[in-house]
Amino acid sequence: MLYLVGLGLADETDITVKGLEIVKKAERVYLEAYTSILLVDTSKLEEFYGRPVIVADREMVESSSDEILHNADKVDVAFLVVGDPFGATTHTDLVLRARELGIEMRNIPNASIMSAIGCTGLQLYSFGQTVSMVFFTDTWKPSSYYDRVKQNAEHGLHTLVLLDIKVKEQSLENMARGRKVYEPPRYMTVAQCAEQMLETEAERKEGICGPESLAIGAARVGAVDQQLVVGTLEELTKVDLGKPLHSLVLLGTKTHELERDYIRRFAVDTATFDNIWKKHYEAKP
Amino acid sequence: MLYLVGLGLADETDITVKGLEIVKKAERVYLEAYTSILLVDTSKLEEFYGRPVIVADREMVESSSDEILHNADKVDVAFLVVGDPFGATTHTDLVLRARELGIEMRNIPNASIMSAIGCTGLQLYSFGQTVSMVFFTDTWKPSSYYDRVKQNAEHGLHTLVLLDIKVKEQSLENMARGRKVYEPPRYMTVAQCAEQMLETEAERKEGICGPESLAIGAARVGAVDQQLVVGTLEELTKVDLGKPLHSLVLLGTKTHELERDYIRRFAVDTATFDNIWKKHYEAKP
Repeated sequence: MLYLVGLGLADETDITVKGLEIVKKAERVYLEAYTSILLVDTSKLEEFYGRPVIVADREMVESSSDEILHNADKVDVAFLVVGDPFGATTHTDLVLRARELGIEMRNIPNASIMSAIGCTGLQLYSFGQTVSMVFFTDTWKPSSYYDRVKQNAEHGLHTLVLLDIKVKEQSLENMARGRKVYEPPRYMTVAQCAEQMLETEAERKEGICGPESLAIGAARVGAVDQQLVVGTLEELTKVDLGKPLHSLVLLGTKTHELERDYIRRFAVDTATFDNIWKKHYEAKP
Repeated sequence: MLYLVGLGLADETDITVKGLEIVKKAERVYLEAYTSILLVDTSKLEEFYGRPVIVADREMVESSSDEILHNADKVDVAFLVVGDPFGATTHTDLVLRARELGIEMRNIPNASIMSAIGCTGLQLYSFGQTVSMVFFTDTWKPSSYYDRVKQNAEHGLHTLVLLDIKVKEQSLENMARGRKVYEPPRYMTVAQCAEQMLETEAERKEGICGPESLAIGAARVGAVDQQLVVGTLEELTKVDLGKPLHSLVLLGTKTHELERDYIRRFAVDTATFDNIWKKHYEAKP
């Protein structure tokens, strides 16, 4: 049996009791380690599970899935995924391959940022489609996310923006020379995301994510030091929310008063928040 | 400290290790038992936690929140919520009241149907806003959900439809007479939901959820007997997915081929699925 086990968002104790039992009994345990990260090291996981964990990078999952699935029709293999196994990144390739090999699969759900973002106090019902934000470079500033945020905004809906993670990336030079040397990991911050959104807005000028748009920055959701901060995108370019992972929610105009009451206490500056709220959000459809 | 602890979706072992530790140590443990249910009885939870659980119905949470929060500035109180604490139903009222009383709060996220629905193989990125479907009566058939499904459909997005639960409801007669006698609980099935969607479509006629619209029925997500079935709404009116809880996803036209490959094996009838796919979904924007 192939078990896809969600690990939740923060540390080793966010696994479910059901998931932990499976990990303890499985023949082999893999950790998918390229689309998201826990806030603790793999060694901490190994200690907690009382057994070794094989770190599976993108290359392994995409090119050597048969190695992961080896024998899984006879023994139990656990494939651990940060968040929910079918969250931001689905592992449909792996499951489809398992099907071809006649291997049964079971998923053990867990918290995903896609729903845990409800901790902002915003109604999950009022979110439109989720978008992701990649690191801009001097020559590559993709703005397709802007169209989707716009579709949400037209209906007054919030947008969850998932921020880029660069793990085990090669520099162009190293890639060209075939050297398996990797850059240090990079995690986009709320401030960087806010800056990029303002950059796109300055170019597109459709009033979707300008300096006076309200947004919520969320850091380390589910951890003891979880942090929420509310402000205009302009304000958020200056906040430091500390260690990864960060996410951002762009507020929709349909925001309910109860949602406002909830988020107001996280405002960078309450007076600014109240002003902007009155100007752009209050009593909007 | 007030702890909002997510219980996940299926049974007592879906609590996280972190959540379980909190429950074991808390002074009082409440279970919010009116917006969703686990698939096991409260007695099973009590046995697993090794301690009593106070069932909190809507009346208690809405009218007697101070009773729940009593002393929580000095001792730990755990408030258990099926799914994620801030999932489909946010408990912002309770948290806002806690804030007024100067009580600190921490949330322990867990799987919510809002993200666990990814187990269908559909990309969570391609979902628009979630809607809920209430039981129609002879005189009350609210169709506001239809407008939101339409907004999603216009952008080719999937829609998650959460199905009505009636727990501890009074009949009109009992309510009028002030008798605290409750009707047996009712949980909407995928078949009932599909039927109601066809009913609304017959009235609105905008081609949003007609007999040839493809949808996925999901039952008991995360449980051992989790079940997925794919078919037209017409076909789904005839399926029996067994015990609660059920959810439904109306497929958007932006469905990716990999998503199709994943869901095809759950088709009520593969030939019908292939035909309808070709006719209405393939290569659509």
